[in-house]
Amino acid sequence: MTAQTEPVAAHVEAAPEESSDEPIWLRNCWQVAAFAAEVGRSILPRMFLGQPVILYRGVGGEPVAMEDRCPHRLVPLSIGTLDGPVIRCGYHGLEFGTDGKCVRIPGQDGIPATARVRTFPVLERYSLIWIWMGEPQLANPTLVPDVHWLDDAAWVPSTGYHRMEADYRLITDNLLDLSHETYVHQKTIGNESVADSPAHVSVEHERIVRADREMHNIVPPPYFARIMASEDRIDRWQSAIYMPPGIHMTEAGVHKVGTDRSKAYVGRVLHLLTPQTKTSSHYFWAMNRNYRLEDAELTEFIRVAVQHTLDEDQNVLELQMRAVLKERPTHFPPLAIRADSAPMRARRLLRKLVKGEIENNTAVAAPTPLAHDPPGALSPKHRISQ
Amino acid sequence: MTAQTEPVAAHVEAAPEESSDEPIWLRNCWQVAAFAAEVGRSILPRMFLGQPVILYRGVGGEPVAMEDRCPHRLVPLSIGTLDGPVIRCGYHGLEFGTDGKCVRIPGQDGIPATARVRTFPVLERYSLIWIWMGEPQLANPTLVPDVHWLDDAAWVPSTGYHRMEADYRLITDNLLDLSHETYVHQKTIGNESVADSPAHVSVEHERIVRADREMHNIVPPPYFARIMASEDRIDRWQSAIYMPPGIHMTEAGVHKVGTDRSKAYVGRVLHLLTPQTKTSSHYFWAMNRNYRLEDAELTEFIRVAVQHTLDEDQNVLELQMRAVLKERPTHFPPLAIRADSAPMRARRLLRKLVKGEIENNTAVAAPTPLAHDPPGALSPKHRISQ
Amino acid sequence: MTAQTEPVAAHVEAAPEESSDEPIWLRNCWQVAAFAAEVGRSILPRMFLGQPVILYRGVGGEPVAMEDRCPHRLVPLSIGTLDGPVIRCGYHGLEFGTDGKCVRIPGQDGIPATARVRTFPVLERYSLIWIWMGEPQLANPTLVPDVHWLDDAAWVPSTGYHRMEADYRLITDNLLDLSHETYVHQKTIGNESVADSPAHVSVEHERIVRADREMHNIVPPPYFARIMASEDRIDRWQSAIYMPPGIHMTEAGVHKVGTDRSKAYVGRVLHLLTPQTKTSSHYFWAMNRNYRLEDAELTEFIRVAVQHTLDEDQNVLELQMRAVLKERPTHFPPLAIRADSAPMRARRLLRKLVKGEIENNTAVAAPTPLAHDPPGALSPKHRISQ
Repeated sequence: MTAQTEPVAAHVEAAPEESSDEPIWLRNCWQVAAFAAEVGRSILPRMFLGQPVILYRGVGGEPVAMEDRCPHRLVPLSIGTLDGPVIRCGYHGLEFGTDGKCVRIPGQDGIPATARVRTFPVLERYSLIWIWMGEPQLANPTLVPDVHWLDDAAWVPSTGYHRMEADYRLITDNLLDLSHETYVHQKTIGNESVADSPAHVSVEHERIVRADREMHNIVPPPYFARIMASEDRIDRWQSAIYMPPGIHMTEAGVHKVGTDRSKAYVGRVLHLLTPQTKTSSHYFWAMNRNYRLEDAELTEFIRVAVQHTLDEDQNVLELQMRAVLKERPTHFPPLAIRADSAPMRARRLLRKLVKGEIENNTAVAAPTPLAHDPPGALSPKHRISQ
Repeated sequence: MTAQTEPVAAHVEAAPEESSDEPIWLRNCWQVAAFAAEVGRSILPRMFLGQPVILYRGVGGEPVAMEDRCPHRLVPLSIGTLDGPVIRCGYHGLEFGTDGKCVRIPGQDGIPATARVRTFPVLERYSLIWIWMGEPQLANPTLVPDVHWLDDAAWVPSTGYHRMEADYRLITDNLLDLSHETYVHQKTIGNESVADSPAHVSVEHERIVRADREMHNIVPPPYFARIMASEDRIDRWQSAIYMPPGIHMTEAGVHKVGTDRSKAYVGRVLHLLTPQTKTSSHYFWAMNRNYRLEDAELTEFIRVAVQHTLDEDQNVLELQMRAVLKERPTHFPPLAIRADSAPMRARRLLRKLVKGEIENNTAVAAPTPLAHDPPGALSPKHRISQ
Repeated sequence: MTAQTEPVAAHVEAAPEESSDEPIWLRNCWQVAAFAAEVGRSILPRMFLGQPVILYRGVGGEPVAMEDRCPHRLVPLSIGTLDGPVIRCGYHGLEFGTDGKCVRIPGQDGIPATARVRTFPVLERYSLIWIWMGEPQLANPTLVPDVHWLDDAAWVPSTGYHRMEADYRLITDNLLDLSHETYVHQKTIGNESVADSPAHVSVEHERIVRADREMHNIVPPPYFARIMASEDRIDRWQSAIYMPPGIHMTEAGVHKVGTDRSKAYVGRVLHLLTPQTKTSSHYFWAMNRNYRLEDAELTEFIRVAVQHTLDEDQNVLELQMRAVLKERPTHFPPLAIRADSAPMRARRLLRKLVKGEIENNTAVAAPTPLAHDPPGALSPKHRISQ
């Protein structure tokens, strides 16, 4: 693998900000719609890319995604009911199959061809339900991003969900500049060592942006002291890896000073962002660890810690969203600092992909691996050819 | 009486929807402002057709309707006080008679002619207060729609009020397509027999739209089983009768299979709609019955049942309103089915009347009787020459 | 001092109302930002003239006002922390001095010149913090309006604060037409004698509008009966004095009929208005009295009475604001009565000053004394040369 490493300017020139009408979404890609366990034989309404959708499972257990809208009078199908193979509208009883085709209109025999609900390609992988909001015929299952750590026997996840009133690009900025941990997350994962250690930023395959940071011989922030059950000084590394539009994996490793990196406690945290609207986002997360796999109490401790940490992010991101909407700056960030190097590369890459899709609506940006597992650390079912 | 019966097409072509700026209100007509018992010697503020109004009674008991706005500084008169023959503004004490004329300005002697509050013709009939929002000189008391069942000795009403966040035309659609009872009102008045029995739709005198449905030898829905104190199979009929802009009467009759129709339990339900704004409505209702007149417990049972039934309607109508506002479809309903035949005729008739009033602001659509009472069933004071 | 007294027409012609886009604020003047006691070593966010600001004190106790916005990513600085001489952003830790200059960016050495927060001239006087929202180089401390009664040993204040959802000009109208006391404040300071006694209106030095009203041999309204501990009839005077944009002083004097005016109980009530937005206002108030100076219970009684009285004003002003926003009248007030004479002169004067500042952004309207203290009534530190 070759990485195009770019020099990091102290004050990168900010790119002109998209106007509020400019498209900011990619459509020809699989995006996370739900945790698999959320979807069953009841109707789950959820909006993606401004589009109201319902999720449920067919009689065979297969996930279904369709527009939350009866074509007759626009009433949401989410007030309807599942009845065997059909969903029945809660207003006049029109019935639709899982392919969206109307199969019954009470009180009449003929069914017009226009009586159909839009459906979306959907599939289940890695304990997640993925949805394809773009051209349906391009929805190839091989294009699902590899986030196998969520259901790999070598890892144990702590999972959760936040809905944030923030443009998903602000969340990406936040995840690619982890220097904010020092100020936003002092109670859990941050201390001064983070902001003081500049990140090394690179772009890989025109598909991934990553920011790597090493912190040597530092005092462990509270969360890591608890994980390692020790206040001893540590070596710590952190890699923020982003694949547009919304797949983030943050690798965090810590080991005691003087010990070998192969002994590190490694977490691979997935932050899976799917736009709800232009100013709000679904944020599915999973902190996956490769140590103390059987320790259910630790799993819960981590879940609560990440929940609190993201609550702190949510507060600052929503305040930022409101300020951006009020001021509508022509460049973003308005004042670029060195820490913005990765966020700005990420925005440039996203913008390029969105532009590509607008110019050619069959363009698809295939995913690339986010990280490689050490030999032996991977269970057979998810082994990737490296 | 001759009725123009039109053939019912399975998939009626939907008419182009009014743009959101197109007028949808009739003004030269009496519309219900309140139940008579709501209006007294205190000030009742209520908005009609986007116009804030106050209702109260003068010293002689006569109902008064005036703009809820002091002409001086626009403060609502509803924060003022009634004092004998005048209403006094709660800000600077200007006083107005029931004709809207200012009779006192504290601190000065002369009163300019422009110091006057707009009033609206208003009258009391059938236990209701009616208001005329159009040209005042056309407000002829003979133009009040006949809804005498509300205070006729041969009938006993159960009454109530809903305010719905829905365009009154959506409520009309709902009342003219009672097939929704099967899906929305399964707990009270609906079962599969309703949606499965097509309605016969007709337009009478270019003034009334009606949809008649007969259901023979059916299982009684829960409400009727309770009313008749029997689970025996019934014959049922249902006539939804609409006179624009907002007068609906739904006649519902049931009798045991094998008995004569003259033995039927008949309810004549009034649904009296007055627009509050373009997207919200006042919904005054009265279920009037011609049986077990002395049974106060039944009156209350019916009141609660109708209340619950309309709560169900309100839920689906408000969801529909939000979807319509978001999508702003160019045709309505977006997919017309056979059950839309009456709603679509009703919209066409309403549109024609509104257009007539815009072209000629003295146009008045005189009311026509909604239904005729059987000989002897009508008390003398409301007898109509038929 | 010469006063240009203008004749009062019974029905003054209303001036064309400003369009909603027309500027309504003066900037080159000191406006009240806070009571001095509100500002300390924690961050107080508050909006003035649509501009989010934070207030705090530097390590030397000096008040500081700066934009509530980190220049990096627009996050409010009000979620940051004070640390000695700097304020640190709560997102990425940028640090700024009290002059707004960035002194540290974590993770980098150079600091670009554009890394700076806008500050506003601010000073402390008369127990108040004053802010200058206009051209900073014009912010001469001698231009602070003289409201010395707030911290003068000869007077005792009862103070409080209201935030009102009303254009500050509506509050000015209200304060200059005290005839509303009769209708809005019957429980405290109003009775019929107020509205029945016309005010004498004058404009002084093209800088002040005043309305003087005398009420002879009247029944004391409840508040004054309590103050004087007597129901005996009184002579009362009232002077509403306004200096644009937002300084009001209302002098209220009462003495028993037959006694000398020099024995009067005099209150000088400051109403200090600072626009928050075009439709909302900060309202700092202080009722200062020159009698029973040691009576702490009376101080509290007055505070509660004024609080209640202004709650009543707030209700009617916010209703008026909503009506104005909905109707957007082309003239204001829509119907001018005699009592509007002072409000209308005030609007004309304000409009002239705002226009002057727009035409010449270095124009400054110097303040003029609101009132003179009787010889001997003034403590040395605030003596004004008259």
